[in-house]
Amino acid sequence: MAVHYDVIGIGNAIVDVLAHSDDAFLAAHGLAKGAMTLIDADTAKSLYDAMTPTIECSGGSAANTIAGLASLGAPTAFIGKVRDDQLGAIFRHDIRALGVAFETLLATGGAATARCLIFVTADAQRTMQTYLGACVELGPGDIDEELIGAAKVTYLEGYLWDPSSAKEAFVKAATVARQAGRTVALSLSDSFCVDRHRNDFRNLVNDHIDIIFANEEEIKSLYQVDTFDAAMQGVRGHCRIAALTRGDKGSVVISGAEVHVVDAAPVSRVVDTTGAGDAYAAGFLFGVTHDFDLAQSARIGGIVAAEAIGHFGARAEVSLDELVRRELAGS
Amino acid sequence: MAVHYDVIGIGNAIVDVLAHSDDAFLAAHGLAKGAMTLIDADTAKSLYDAMTPTIECSGGSAANTIAGLASLGAPTAFIGKVRDDQLGAIFRHDIRALGVAFETLLATGGAATARCLIFVTADAQRTMQTYLGACVELGPGDIDEELIGAAKVTYLEGYLWDPSSAKEAFVKAATVARQAGRTVALSLSDSFCVDRHRNDFRNLVNDHIDIIFANEEEIKSLYQVDTFDAAMQGVRGHCRIAALTRGDKGSVVISGAEVHVVDAAPVSRVVDTTGAGDAYAAGFLFGVTHDFDLAQSARIGGIVAAEAIGHFGARAEVSLDELVRRELAGS
Repeated sequence: MAVHYDVIGIGNAIVDVLAHSDDAFLAAHGLAKGAMTLIDADTAKSLYDAMTPTIECSGGSAANTIAGLASLGAPTAFIGKVRDDQLGAIFRHDIRALGVAFETLLATGGAATARCLIFVTADAQRTMQTYLGACVELGPGDIDEELIGAAKVTYLEGYLWDPSSAKEAFVKAATVARQAGRTVALSLSDSFCVDRHRNDFRNLVNDHIDIIFANEEEIKSLYQVDTFDAAMQGVRGHCRIAALTRGDKGSVVISGAEVHVVDAAPVSRVVDTTGAGDAYAAGFLFGVTHDFDLAQSARIGGIVAAEAIGHFGARAEVSLDELVRRELAGS
Repeated sequence: MAVHYDVIGIGNAIVDVLAHSDDAFLAAHGLAKGAMTLIDADTAKSLYDAMTPTIECSGGSAANTIAGLASLGAPTAFIGKVRDDQLGAIFRHDIRALGVAFETLLATGGAATARCLIFVTADAQRTMQTYLGACVELGPGDIDEELIGAAKVTYLEGYLWDPSSAKEAFVKAATVARQAGRTVALSLSDSFCVDRHRNDFRNLVNDHIDIIFANEEEIKSLYQVDTFDAAMQGVRGHCRIAALTRGDKGSVVISGAEVHVVDAAPVSRVVDTTGAGDAYAAGFLFGVTHDFDLAQSARIGGIVAAEAIGHFGARAEVSLDELVRRELAGS
């Protein structure tokens, strides 16, 4: 089967609703700081009513990664479910405007397009409250086997494990990709998400995944250990490549006997960490699909993450292609 | 009648759709740089389809001014028409979240909530393409006489002259405010808007308006003269107060024999001039409704405008109340 895409991403298709907030607001509403929490439609409404003025922009973890890859110049595709409403039109516009192939059928009934209420505090942390809406309609029928077979890498987000039919879609996509001889990558998404699905995720990492992305909290949660080093020893040997991010400590990449400890790229001003992990995955996957070695790929991941951290919102404000060329040339 | 509000704004209720762009895109689509152009639903769709990824946030000229006043701590109200759709819910949420009284009935049929496609170029200019949508449904029936009578200032945008029933609403509001002994303020909005309605605007300025806001291009267009000085002599004596903005040259305020030439506030980085005029009007109206003299009011206008210019999008990213206190204290 011919390869048409570097990466196809499958994830929850979400519009982000961002506002500046403070710890008092988080406490008053019982929100778990720094985490992604699932909420129902009523809670989404009451929380939005209490929120300061917002800006809206397309989000979604895997979708952000695909957007980053597209901005890096990689041919990409995305599978995710929105409704035929105004927020769905925004999501579809934004991802297609980047040149991403996005042909998943719109839901024509049921819940509205998903949104994620994001509260950004002065310490640049983001607290996310997600109403999955139409995302629960994603199912195995949305997984186009030919599309999966046409991509070097199939990239899946752990959050897909939350809606049950999306989980089936996830498994189908991973199976199809493996059968086609392609690479399967997984982002663990969030430590609470790992808590919800720990055994499943461990089995996935052992048997179905080639590349795992996780931050320090997530990988520690997966192996229920207290130190980064213990977590790193846990994942070692279970997965072809593990790319583990550690915030301003940079990232560690493990592949068999090969281990790289790569410093973070400098960030002039830490504004909002929303999407930093998604951005790292974009840079790293760009590297591994373009014949960069693992250390270089980790470095590109760091450059793209640093860009995301420097502004409000998850998606790039500049052409990542130019940024990465400039940064790599400057070294 | 008791005064409950410092300012009530009446304007087109619009959600902004912002993207970075370049001169080549503007030329390819025949867009008049720096201007606001009205477009129909089909053009809005085709132009949006051609647009790079966007962010969405509430906008509208008078609505931005009212949002600025609310952020300054002033009690305010707004009248404008949105539909009962997702973008309408966003507009309503954002203005109410600032504490603005906004009770205009939603349109339950007809066109969707208005949107303004804004193309921001690297020189920080914004080119605006507005689909008025539900705004054309605003009419005299939406003007609550008691609300108008309860506000020190009724603030109107020139753009209201575009939809015909909104024009009737404008005239009713101005008449009611004058009868109640209140102040009527008008922003000329845009030089092309002045071109469309020059004679009406001249009559308004002569007979119905106490405070006029205009930038250099708008006031030159109103009097069809080539120099700022000629325009300034033109408006002198026709209106109780004229507050004329000149970009980085600051502003000139004229009231009878009194004339003030006030420097612009320093701007560290010019990112996006969207909403600079709206922001100036907010600061100036805050001044005149809080016993600041005209020169001080112009200075507050400049401080608020400088904040708006420093970021992407028209509405404040910080508490304007704190910002203005700090800036005035620092002098």
